[in-house]
Formats: sequence, structure tokens, C-alpha cells
Amino acid sequence: MRGGRFRGSPSAIMQSMNASIDFDRALWRQDINGSVEHSRMLARTGIISNEDAIAIREGLNTISDEIECGDFGFSRELEDIHMNIEARLAELIGDAAGRLHTARSRNDQVATDFRMWTRDRIDCAIDLLKDLIGALLDQAETGADLIMPGFTHLQTAQPVTWGHHMMAYVEMFHRDTGRFHDARVRMNESPLGAAALAGTPFPIDRDSTAAALGFDRPMANSMDAVSDRDFALEYLSATAICACHLSRLAEEIVLWTSSQFGFASLGDSYTTGSSIMPQKRNPDAAELVRAKTGRVNGALVALLTVVKGLPMTYSKDLQEDKERVFDAAETIELSLMAMTGMIDELRPRPDRLRNAAGTGHSTATDMADWLVRVAGMPFRDAHHVTGQLVLLAEGKGCELADLDVHEMKEVCEHVTEEMASVLDPERSAESRNSYGGTAPVRVREQVRRWKDALKCE
Amino acid sequence: MRGGRFRGSPSAIMQSMNASIDFDRALWRQDINGSVEHSRMLARTGIISNEDAIAIREGLNTISDEIECGDFGFSRELEDIHMNIEARLAELIGDAAGRLHTARSRNDQVATDFRMWTRDRIDCAIDLLKDLIGALLDQAETGADLIMPGFTHLQTAQPVTWGHHMMAYVEMFHRDTGRFHDARVRMNESPLGAAALAGTPFPIDRDSTAAALGFDRPMANSMDAVSDRDFALEYLSATAICACHLSRLAEEIVLWTSSQFGFASLGDSYTTGSSIMPQKRNPDAAELVRAKTGRVNGALVALLTVVKGLPMTYSKDLQEDKERVFDAAETIELSLMAMTGMIDELRPRPDRLRNAAGTGHSTATDMADWLVRVAGMPFRDAHHVTGQLVLLAEGKGCELADLDVHEMKEVCEHVTEEMASVLDPERSAESRNSYGGTAPVRVREQVRRWKDALKCE
Amino acid sequence: MRGGRFRGSPSAIMQSMNASIDFDRALWRQDINGSVEHSRMLARTGIISNEDAIAIREGLNTISDEIECGDFGFSRELEDIHMNIEARLAELIGDAAGRLHTARSRNDQVATDFRMWTRDRIDCAIDLLKDLIGALLDQAETGADLIMPGFTHLQTAQPVTWGHHMMAYVEMFHRDTGRFHDARVRMNESPLGAAALAGTPFPIDRDSTAAALGFDRPMANSMDAVSDRDFALEYLSATAICACHLSRLAEEIVLWTSSQFGFASLGDSYTTGSSIMPQKRNPDAAELVRAKTGRVNGALVALLTVVKGLPMTYSKDLQEDKERVFDAAETIELSLMAMTGMIDELRPRPDRLRNAAGTGHSTATDMADWLVRVAGMPFRDAHHVTGQLVLLAEGKGCELADLDVHEMKEVCEHVTEEMASVLDPERSAESRNSYGGTAPVRVREQVRRWKDALKCE
Amino acid sequence: MRGGRFRGSPSAIMQSMNASIDFDRALWRQDINGSVEHSRMLARTGIISNEDAIAIREGLNTISDEIECGDFGFSRELEDIHMNIEARLAELIGDAAGRLHTARSRNDQVATDFRMWTRDRIDCAIDLLKDLIGALLDQAETGADLIMPGFTHLQTAQPVTWGHHMMAYVEMFHRDTGRFHDARVRMNESPLGAAALAGTPFPIDRDSTAAALGFDRPMANSMDAVSDRDFALEYLSATAICACHLSRLAEEIVLWTSSQFGFASLGDSYTTGSSIMPQKRNPDAAELVRAKTGRVNGALVALLTVVKGLPMTYSKDLQEDKERVFDAAETIELSLMAMTGMIDELRPRPDRLRNAAGTGHSTATDMADWLVRVAGMPFRDAHHVTGQLVLLAEGKGCELADLDVHEMKEVCEHVTEEMASVLDPERSAESRNSYGGTAPVRVREQVRRWKDALKCE
Repeated sequence: MRGGRFRGSPSAIMQSMNASIDFDRALWRQDINGSVEHSRMLARTGIISNEDAIAIREGLNTISDEIECGDFGFSRELEDIHMNIEARLAELIGDAAGRLHTARSRNDQVATDFRMWTRDRIDCAIDLLKDLIGALLDQAETGADLIMPGFTHLQTAQPVTWGHHMMAYVEMFHRDTGRFHDARVRMNESPLGAAALAGTPFPIDRDSTAAALGFDRPMANSMDAVSDRDFALEYLSATAICACHLSRLAEEIVLWTSSQFGFASLGDSYTTGSSIMPQKRNPDAAELVRAKTGRVNGALVALLTVVKGLPMTYSKDLQEDKERVFDAAETIELSLMAMTGMIDELRPRPDRLRNAAGTGHSTATDMADWLVRVAGMPFRDAHHVTGQLVLLAEGKGCELADLDVHEMKEVCEHVTEEMASVLDPERSAESRNSYGGTAPVRVREQVRRWKDALKCE
Repeated sequence: MRGGRFRGSPSAIMQSMNASIDFDRALWRQDINGSVEHSRMLARTGIISNEDAIAIREGLNTISDEIECGDFGFSRELEDIHMNIEARLAELIGDAAGRLHTARSRNDQVATDFRMWTRDRIDCAIDLLKDLIGALLDQAETGADLIMPGFTHLQTAQPVTWGHHMMAYVEMFHRDTGRFHDARVRMNESPLGAAALAGTPFPIDRDSTAAALGFDRPMANSMDAVSDRDFALEYLSATAICACHLSRLAEEIVLWTSSQFGFASLGDSYTTGSSIMPQKRNPDAAELVRAKTGRVNGALVALLTVVKGLPMTYSKDLQEDKERVFDAAETIELSLMAMTGMIDELRPRPDRLRNAAGTGHSTATDMADWLVRVAGMPFRDAHHVTGQLVLLAEGKGCELADLDVHEMKEVCEHVTEEMASVLDPERSAESRNSYGGTAPVRVREQVRRWKDALKCE
Repeated sequence: MRGGRFRGSPSAIMQSMNASIDFDRALWRQDINGSVEHSRMLARTGIISNEDAIAIREGLNTISDEIECGDFGFSRELEDIHMNIEARLAELIGDAAGRLHTARSRNDQVATDFRMWTRDRIDCAIDLLKDLIGALLDQAETGADLIMPGFTHLQTAQPVTWGHHMMAYVEMFHRDTGRFHDARVRMNESPLGAAALAGTPFPIDRDSTAAALGFDRPMANSMDAVSDRDFALEYLSATAICACHLSRLAEEIVLWTSSQFGFASLGDSYTTGSSIMPQKRNPDAAELVRAKTGRVNGALVALLTVVKGLPMTYSKDLQEDKERVFDAAETIELSLMAMTGMIDELRPRPDRLRNAAGTGHSTATDMADWLVRVAGMPFRDAHHVTGQLVLLAEGKGCELADLDVHEMKEVCEHVTEEMASVLDPERSAESRNSYGGTAPVRVREQVRRWKDALKCE
Repeated sequence: MRGGRFRGSPSAIMQSMNASIDFDRALWRQDINGSVEHSRMLARTGIISNEDAIAIREGLNTISDEIECGDFGFSRELEDIHMNIEARLAELIGDAAGRLHTARSRNDQVATDFRMWTRDRIDCAIDLLKDLIGALLDQAETGADLIMPGFTHLQTAQPVTWGHHMMAYVEMFHRDTGRFHDARVRMNESPLGAAALAGTPFPIDRDSTAAALGFDRPMANSMDAVSDRDFALEYLSATAICACHLSRLAEEIVLWTSSQFGFASLGDSYTTGSSIMPQKRNPDAAELVRAKTGRVNGALVALLTVVKGLPMTYSKDLQEDKERVFDAAETIELSLMAMTGMIDELRPRPDRLRNAAGTGHSTATDMADWLVRVAGMPFRDAHHVTGQLVLLAEGKGCELADLDVHEMKEVCEHVTEEMASVLDPERSAESRNSYGGTAPVRVREQVRRWKDALKCE
């Protein structure tokens, strides 16, 4: 490939820096598919003979089998997956192999391979998100009535239901699905035929290769085709946002399975012990999922930095696109699977949840609302009075609901026995039945809506 | 707002850390619109009286005028834009002001305001991208035949046309438009009515406020509504990718206007001088656009970091969402305007471009192709022989096209006088007329396609 | 400044992008000090007259007073702080003002100003870290015996002391101090006299201006002096690591002040209420400190991205250095002050801590150790048996220490009444008295060591 | 290791997520050294017998040989390098193996291993930086007189010397050395003996293991020892700043070897050809070095994100520390070696450099200075007049030096024949002989200073 232009060889450091075969071999399937369809098109348009095309196809099939079986000898001197396959093809079928590269260069070839690979990872992420959403819907359905404390600032805020909490994540992960889907639609154009950067004088048919490889159309500008990597950046962005959502749910699992919260337990499948402390059951999987968001953010930053300020068209810098995307894909897929597994196994502890929902003065808002509605107080006054009652309860080390009506009356004359009912967490949750609210009836409605919607997808 | 719960005051440090009014005042329009529609709905559903709703609306209109005219006294003690407006409303209309906050909390209020603000910035970015694409199309049209060197690795690769180069960026910026559009569709759901986190017992009509504020529908889960910021992350991601594209074009402008390249000149509007070196005409605007990608990447990293691992629902951490998004919006908008201005004023220098296209052995690929097509050589041999001729030319300090036929014949017997024609850069560019290729006829076709498409948008 | 080279004016967009006066006015003190010392040196070396130097100095003093009092009219047309001051100086003292810029350019001037500014921020950070370490030492001293659960994976691991926990942060923040200190030493070289990029033909004395401005020496290469910003990157790195430490402590405060943990309480000074929920006391300051790490990370990423791939020497891109560093400085300083305030006010709740230390089977390791030491069991067997006993206790809903000896004997014959003593959390903590261990005696030793060390600094 | 606490097994996903042996095997040498010294200390303090210590040491030596020869069977079920080695030790020496883990846990063990590993990478980076600085000094020495254009904003600014340009990078890379050095000093404390988190009741001697493993002292707080990773963050920060410097030099090599600049050539060792374009000699190594800064920045962001907001002490999230640091180390080392190789082989092209230094009106500043010095004009007037002459020259398509004296006199009466001499680039460079300036005499002085200094290091 260096050709007649060079007298010397690359240095050893250069070779070890330059060779990408150690990682880009992951693209072998895409590379072979792309070559098969390219050769078919070359024959169809009369650029190469049918015999050559058949020989090429058979040779590539052989190579495919060899790689599948682990019999293929990858070589670092041949730099990358494209040259490794081309060189093997030449061994297998001789001169015809040289005609495969007509009207193509490595620039459009790698752009095509990498796009197809990323497209596959998007499809995989969408499938895994569907599994996770399914697991969350199951949790939501069985826990639609389960009362637990809702937090803001990690301080007890108002009672919510376990089902409602789970459904919040259904919404998030479904938007992640949408982002992956949009990225797929946008990227699904074929770079093949852009050649080195400027197109080719050969009478190729880019529409047919695009269609054969599952693309919606060929890319409309050859320079853009070989030099832009925004599809990879968009994939990484969607992955980073998804990882962010996963990290939040992971954090909650870590909290919930702590002694202090004790809201839920994880089975033995997703916890580990300690080499020294025999009592430990650590939520390692949740911690790892939480941490992996760093890895994905790092991949996004890496590629954004790489592409910054690169002039047209292909620069070798772009070889740095693959490893971070590969790593991010593996990371998000493993994280999604682990999270689905954990959600499947997560067991809420109803007593602990209910008790916690009844502490922290979680229904103080309901009391303030009652004072507004029943006693006709202005909200700001009601808010102030309720705050004073909280202070009183705290001083006595009890909950708002445990205060005696007489004590309360000293602070606020409007308080009556009847008010006590609004301090009940179940009633509080049931009352919040506005659209999107935490009332069990609303949660069930949402579960049904989602289950129906997902069936149709 | 602290209410009866607190005996002490916040410390001075706490106040200066906590107050957001210095930046969230940017949301004032959204906040007032949101409150107007919320109060209309409260009246429509009978939660408040019509008189109160009218008083609230008139009060808010007065406040709107005050802010518009700079007559509004923002106060840090009132922390944020929401409390500043509410407090002023109370001054203006008394008790009715307190009823505005019924069935609403600051959590859903700020989520609604910020979503509407971001939606406006998306619309603005889309408009500015349209302007930039228009400027690029004009450059492409007038420079459709202009020959220049195409580069890979910043080494002369093959001749391309100025128009083709410009059209590469049209493709990129149009994908940016698509990303902003998709983000807008996904985020266009109303959080209003989610209240603190759990919904509300009041019989509100979330559909009507959603519609009145231009949202497609209300968000379906109240906990998600107040605690997720993926819409901001998606906006930042789209912005970062767009900034990345801008940085590449900016880099090219810096290169092209250097003495060494001399491919184009910028007028006085987008260049600056030096306080010490009288000859300088520095492409400051291009450099700043290139640099600003750092700022946008930083904003994306900041928010990804903030949201990582936050448990449900609202945490104060989320107050850190706004400043980075505000800054990124201002940055991308200014960058887009500056780039459109530069593209409008950019003057290619045809002689320099044509000369450069004729150097660096830019048509060596065409020679190799000729040897394949006419002399029937295998491509690898043709590639090798051409490389040797390049080496010969380089040794003599001349271009491939300047070599004598006899000299060439010594390296390769197949060379004839006729071959010289393929070394012409114009002919080379014209020949690359595959779909998406650099041939002027293809470039004109694309310009027409885009101009038609943009008319319809 | 544009000079005779330009016929047209900059566009409005260009001006608003280019002008830095809105933020670089923060450098005014440094700019004036630098100019005063530069003019003194120019006079001393005979480059300008003493009269001119005196006039310059007096003019600069006047300007200093004007800015201090808010009487200085900053102008955007004059772009930056340097030109604003120079133009005002010309108004005040006429021609002599023009001689100030001899043997200097804005490139070395801004590099000098920004270095001095950053040096001041480092000194400030070091002082604030000292305050925070002092507050932690006080907590450690008073809580040296206070037993609490130590966690790994947020699961109860072994009993530790409050003092030991506090001392862990003393170590971290002291390393942060070291990083700031090292950055200061490395950056403390003067760029002044590097001129535009190549030095100057004037017989300047760089040693004297360096000394007068508190630098250790002049920078040895003029191109490096005007184009490198690694001092800012190093400052941001040290800041990011420090913010990271702060975020960890902030997370703990959020956990500890939750209902579920209830390990400590914060006073009213660093908490806020809710506009809707009267019972809330939210740890907003801790949450904000935790979130601000995103902002600092973003600033670091921004500048790393800006500087990537810039050729020598000064490029306008470098103007993007300041705002992120300014913002990071303000952020870390506010965060440090808020954290010191919170630590001062943090009140541990001994009963809750002690109870928690006695649950979660926190002394299971001590039991396993006892089986090894007393019963001579191999550790792996002892670990296994203890795990079984934990399972037994969990099944009964009790703690390890609550199990009956007979029950235990059924699992492991070696258990005796005497073993119970090792299950006591206090004894467990006291026993871990290896150097650096949690035993109160060790904690007190460390507190003393640090208090002595800090006195000497 | 799960012990008696668990009834079920980890899921397959859990195992593949949890196991770190695929990457942490890189720590095997450090792990074995640490264990050898720990066992020696246990024997010396009487905690285990001498016989056991000897058996452990011999067993570990055997394992070391096995790994070295590739005969060691790593197992994923055993999770990590620590358990893999411990399990093999048990096979080799039986019960004594179980005593090795006395007074130690995996938490302090992995912290110790990773610190030693990072320390080695720092030493390696420092050595490689020394090589690179040596190569730059050689270039500076031979090119001390070589005139080239100095740029600001990539616009010709003033003539500089090749040697001076090289020396700018010597300064930068030496500061990088300093950062690595400081990080090494700060991190060189031993975590060993911190045990799980709280220290140990065994009478261990942490000073002796610290000394034996090359640490300056044991860490003073056990919780800090097992949970902080600021040493890794500091290593990554220093690496990122160094990568940033490398990216700038790489960018210059890309520019200089382009046709348009033609300032220097790279030999065949660090360039590659094209599979399609026979004339190409692409500076791939430089492009890759430039791109790798993205990878390093990404690693830094990843770890900063991971550590954000983690409560004490060890959390599984910290397992995500290693891969990014490993990758960053490999990246920076390869980049430094490649850059040293390129600098060794870089051949400046004196004619092209000299010609470029004489164009772009590079000595306009010298003309303005002459008008000030000789004709007594105020600098602002001289700057303006020179700008007009540049405009005149540009209109005629010539350089300032090519203008006729009579033409110039029409713009400015003070111009004389004598002025021409200052327009000579050599004279311009020689004149800038202030300390740190570009004059050859200054460059030689700096080269000598650095060569002497490096000899002593």
C-alpha cells in the first residue's frame, strides 16, 4: 500500500501506533457484507466481470467462515481489517481480488463499515431498553398501591407509590429509545461510493449498494461522507444520557438496599460478598452501573475533542473514533442488561416503605392544604402554621400525626379531630390523582397505556 | 417561604450560593406566560374565581411591562425569578396573588419555564442554521466550477471544487438542524401540574395548560416531570455537535487566510489588527468560533456530571442546569451568526486555488487509473509505478505533469503523450461525476435540490 | 489599533464576539500593577524618561482610584481591559501614555496579568482550605470517641469513629493544598518582556520586573510565554480534584441529614424550606456543593479543548481561557466557604450513630477474627461460619449480637459466651489501633499532629 | 469469598460486569511484591511464623515465574488478580496461603498495587519526556540560526528562529516533567495496613512495609487510604496537559509538512501512503498524536465523573479507575515515543522557511520601530503609516521590502534608503536579543543551559 513513493519502512513505534487491527477487527462482518454488495454492483454496472464478482463473493464467504471459526490469521503489518481481508482474498482468488477495490477507497469503506456497526448497536440498545422498560412495568403493576416516601433533596416530601416511582423511569428510558431511534434514522445513509473524498469516474450505482446494505439512500456529498463522524457523536450522546438515567436508578438501588433505608432487597444474583467482612451483601452491580456513566461521558468527550477543528476531509485522527464507541456500546449494553436483571430481582419491603412514608412529616402539605380548603386560611399562613407544628413535633421527637389535637389547637385554632384523616399517607397518595399523579388509579392507567403501546411497537 | 419551620436565618454564604435570580431572571417571560395560563386554567376549572384570575393576569401584565422597561427591582433575598414575581404580584394585587400557586410548586414551575426557554433557543438555532446554510449554498453556486485541492491528512489528495467543499458543510449543518428538531419534538411536553413531585388533589386540567403554552401534551409522570433534565442534555448534545462542525469550518478559514495557503480572504468586518504589528489581519472571529466548541463541550460535561447519580426527585443540584445551558445557547447563536457573516464575506482566490490544485501531484490517482484503464495494468502495479514517478518528480523539484514523457517511459513503458490529459485538474474534477461526487454538474444539482428543499421548509 | 491596514470596520457581531471587557475587567488591578512596574523598568534602563515614568505612574494611580470607586467608564469598542486603561491614560497624560507600550505587546501583557490573577486565586484557595481543615479538626477532636458505622458500598462494614471519618477529609484537603502550592511554584515566572512573541530589541531588564511583580524569575522563552496556558490548566485540575473531594463530603451530609440516616443535623443557616411543603429542611448548600463539581469539570474540559492542537504562538482562541477560570475560581471559593460553614454547624447525633453502628452485623469481622484467634479456625472457615450466622440472624430479623449462644453453637461448636464481647462496637473500634486506624487514641494522635503542623505553616 | 452469607450464585451478567481480571492482571508484579513484603512483615512482627512466610514467598516466586512465562491460568470466576494469585498460592502451599491475608483486605491491597503501578508509569513518562526534550534540544542547536516566520493567529507575525521555536516546547515539556514529579512525591505513601477501612487490631508495622515497597511513609488515615483516588486523577491531569502540548507540536508538524507550508519534511519512518492515491505521504503519526489528546481528556473526565459524590469509603465504583488510567498511560507513552521519533527525523527546509519569513510583511513591526527610533514618530502614528504601506504593497502584490523608496515617501516623508536594512528578517531576529528572545545568541545560551541542567538530573 505504501507503493513506489517510499524507500524506507515505518518505524516500529509508528507501526504499533498506526495499526488498528487489534480493535477494528470488530468490523469484520460489516466489511465483508459491504464488499459483497460493492462487488455485486460493480458486476451489475459492467465495471468488473461476473466471473470476478462470483470469485470475490466466494472468496469473501470463505474468509467469513475462517473468521467465524477463529482460523483467520490477523496481521498487524496489514494494519487494519480492510487490508487483512483484502490480502487474504488475494491469496484465495488471485488477481480478481485487486478489482474489488475499484471505485472505492478505504475512506468510504471504513465509513460504511462503522456506520453499519453503529446501526447494529443502536438496534441492540433499543431492544435492551425494551426489556428494561418491561421489567419496570412489571414492578409498577405489582407495586401500584405500595406506599413509600417520595423525596426531594433526599428529604421526605410526600407519600408516593412504588409503581409511580418505577413509571418515572419508564418515561426516561422511553425517551432514550427515542433518541437512539432518531439517531438511527439520521445516520442511515450510505457513504459507499464517495471513494477517497471526491467521488469516482466509474459509472457506479450508489443507490443499489445503499439499498442492499439496508441504508435509506446514499450520502449526497462525498467529502462529508468520508470526513464526518457526527453519527458516532450522536450515538455517544444518546448513550451518555441513557447512562445518566441508569446512574440515577442505580443510586436509588444502592440507597434502598442500605441498612439505613432498607426499602428493598436484591437477591444473591446481583450482590457480592467481602473477602474480609462475612456479613456483607454489596450491591456491586448497581455501583458499577452508576460508575459506568463516567466511562461513557469520557468516550463522548474523547470523540468531541478528536473531531474539534479538523479540516476536510479524512484525517488520521478519525481512526480514534472506534475504540471509544466500541467501549461505550459494550458498556451501555452490559449496564442495561444488569439493570434489567436487578429490577427483575428487586424486592420492595412494604413495611419499611410504609413506615418511612409515615415519618418525616410527609403529609404536612396535606395538612396545609386542609387548612386552606376547610378553614379557608391563605396558603402562606397555612404553610407557616404547619411549619410551627412540625417544629413542635420534632421537639417532642414524634411525628405530626402523633400530636395531640389540643396541643395543635394552641398553635392554630382551626385544627379539629377531623383533620387527622388527611395525615394518612395512603389517603394522601390516593388524593393526588391529577393526570400524571401518584394515585394508584393513575399508575395503573399508565401501566396499561405503556403495555399496550409497547405491544404495537 | 422558609415558613414556621425555621428559627434562624440562612448564612450570608448560603444566600449567595443559593440565590439564582442573577441568572434565572432570563426566564421571566416564560414564567409570566406560564402563570397566566395556569391562572386561566384554575379559573376555568373553578379552583379559583374569575375575579382572582383577572386580577392575577393584570398584575402579571404590569410586572411584564416593568421588567421590559427595566423598572423591576430584582431582589436576591427572594432567591429566584419565581419568588421575585410572586412577591411583586402580592404587592400589586394582594391576597389573590397567593391563590396563583394553588396546585403548583416551584418544582413544576421551573421545569416548565426552562423547557419553554430551551424550546425558544432551539427555534432560534434552527433559524440561524438556515441562514448559514443559505450562505453556504450561495458560495457553492458561484464557486461550483472553481477548482481547488482536496485534502486528506492536510496533504493534497485530489482536485475538488469550491462548491463541493461548501456543500459538505451544508450536509453537516442540515443534520444539526435535524438534531435540534428532534430534540424539540421530544421535549415538547408540559411538566405543569406535576406539583412538588406527586401531582395534586385539585381537579386541574393539564391538557389545557399544555396546549395554551404550545406543548403537545402534558408529561405523563409527575416525578419524572420535576426531576429529569434530559431535554437540556439533548439540547447541549446537539449544540456540541453543531459547534464541532463550526470548529472545522473555522479551522479551514484560519488555514485558507494564512499566507501559506492564501486560498481566500476575509474582509475587514471579521478580522482584526494587532496593537504592535501593523501588517496583521487576524481571523479572530474564526479563531473564536473554533475555540467556543470547548465552551459548549464544557457545558455538556458539566450538566452530565451534575445529573449523574441523583436520586429521585428534585434535588437542588438541578439548579446548576441553567447557567451552562444559557451560556451554551448564547455561544452557539453568536457562533452561527459570526460564521454566516464570514461565509458571506469569504472571497476565494481562484488563481491560488487553481495553482494549488495543480501541485502536490494531485492527479496521481488519475494517472494510476489511466494505466489501469488504457494500459490494462493491475491497479497495485499502476499505483506502484505512479509512486515511483512522483518520487522522480520530487527529486527534480517539479510536478508529475512537468515530467518529460521520455523520462517517464524509463520508469514505465506504457506511458504515452496522450496520458498527459488526465493530469489536468479540471478534467479530473469533471470526471468524478458519480452521485455525490465533486463534478461541477453534480454540485449544481445538489445546490438546486437544497434550494428547493429549503424553500418548502 | 486596527491602524492603516484596514479600510472597513468590524461587523457588530464581530465586535460582540471579540470584546472581552465584560469579563477581563476582573484583571484591572493586575494590569495596572504590571504597567507600573514595566514603566519603572523602562525608566531605569533609560528606554523612557523619568518624567514620562512618573506621569504614567500617576495616571495609572488615578485610573486605579476611578475603577475602585466605580467611576471608570468601560467601553466595548476598546475591546479589553488593556486598551481601556491605555486609552484612559492617554486622556489623562497625553503622549507619554504611548511610551508605556514600548517593548511590550498585549500578548505578554495579558499573559502576565492572568498569571498574577491566577496566583492570587491559588493563595485564596489555600487559605480557604486551611479554614476547612481547621473546622474538620475541631469536629474530629470533639468526636474522637463517637462510634458510628463505617461503610463500604454504603453497606455497614465495621464500626469507626466520627473523628476518624473527619480526619479522612483532612488528609484529602491537605493534598489539595499541596496541589495548589505546587501549581503556584511552577507558574510563578514572568512572561513580561516576551513582547508579541519573539522578544524585543529594547534593552529591557526582565529580572527586575519579574521581581517587582513577585515572580521568581522571567520565563526563558518568549514564544512559550505568550502561547502556553498550562498554568491555567493546572489550576483547573487542582480545582477539579478539590471539588471532587468536596462533592464526596457533600454527599455524606445529604445522606446523614436524611430521615433514613439521621446521623447528623444542620442548623438553619445552611438549610432551606420548601414553597409548598412546610416540614422540609433541605440541605441545599450541600447539594449545591455536590453539583458544582460539574461546573469545575466543565471548565477544565473547556480549556483542554480550546488549547488542543493550537499551533504557536498566540491565537485568539486563548481569549477563551479566562471566563472558565474565573468561574471555576468563584465556584471553588464559594464551595469551600460553604463547606466550612456546614462543618462548623454540623451536629452529630450520637444515639443514632451508636445504634446504627450496632446494626447491620457490623462486628461480623470481629467474630470471624475471634474464631481464628481463639478457636484456631482457618480464616476462610471462620468467614463462612460467620456468614451463616448472619443469615440466621437476618432470618430472625435480629442482629448477630442478639443471637442466643445455643442457636449459634448449632452452626459452630466453637462459639462461647465469651465471644459476645467482641461484638461490641466500641471495643471493635478501640481494637483497630494500628497506625492510621480508627481507634480513638489514634485519632487524637492525628488531630494533635495536624494541629501542630498547621500552626507552623 | 462470598462465604456463608449467600445461597445463590451471581448471575452471568453480574459476573461479566464484576470480573476485573481481564484488565487488572496488569497489576500482577505489584501484587506479588506487595504480598511478599506484607508476609515478611507479618513474620517479623510475629503475626505469622517464619516457616509460613518462607512458604508464601517461595509460592509467590513460583507464581511470578508462571505469569512471566505465560503459564498462569487466569480465571474469571476468581474475579481479580488478587484472588487469582491467592487461589493459586493455596494450591501451591496449602493452609499457609490463608495466613497471607491476615491484617489486610482487598481494599488496601488494590490501593497499594495501583499506587505502585501508577508510580512506575510516572517514572516512565519522566524518562520519555527527557528523551523528547533531548531531541528538541538537538533540533534547537542545529537550527539556532535558521530563520522562519513566527506566527500569531497563524498569520505571519515576526521572524523567529527554528531553534527558538523548538525551545518553546522544551519549556513546556519540562513543566510536564515537573507535574509528574510532584504527583509522584504526593502519592508516594503506602495504603497497606489500612485493611478494609478501619485499620486492624493486629500489631502490624506499616513503616516497614512502606519502606520496603519504596513508599516514603504509610498513609495516616485508613478510610482515606482505601477510598481516595486523587493520585490517579492527578496522574491523569498531568497526562492531559502533556497530551495537550503534544497535540500542539503535532499540529505544527501536520502544517509544516503540507504542500502549502512545506516548512519541513518527515522521513518514511513516520509517514504512510494511501491505498488509492500513489503520491501521498501522510503524517499519520502526527495526526494520531494530535488525536490522542481526546482519549486522555476522556479518561480524565471518566474518572472525575466516577468519583463525584461517592460517600466513604470504598465503593465498587472505584473499580472503574483502572482501565482509563491504563489506557491513558499507554497512550501518553506511545505518543511521547512517536513524537521523539518524529522530532529526530524532522528535516527543516531552510529555503522555504527563509522565503516564508520574508513574506507576509513580517518585519512591519521593525519598520514601525524604526520610524519611532529614527524619525521620532509616536508609535501609534508609525503603526498607522506602516499599515498604509502594507496596504499599498498588498495592492501591488508585493512585499513591503519590495516597495520603492519614492512610493513610500509619498505615504510617509520620513522614509529613507537606510530604512530598508531593518526589513531584513535575519537582522530582525538578531535584534530581538532580550532575555528569552529569538536572537540566535539567546537560543544557544538556552540550549547550553538546558543541556547542562539535564546532565545533572
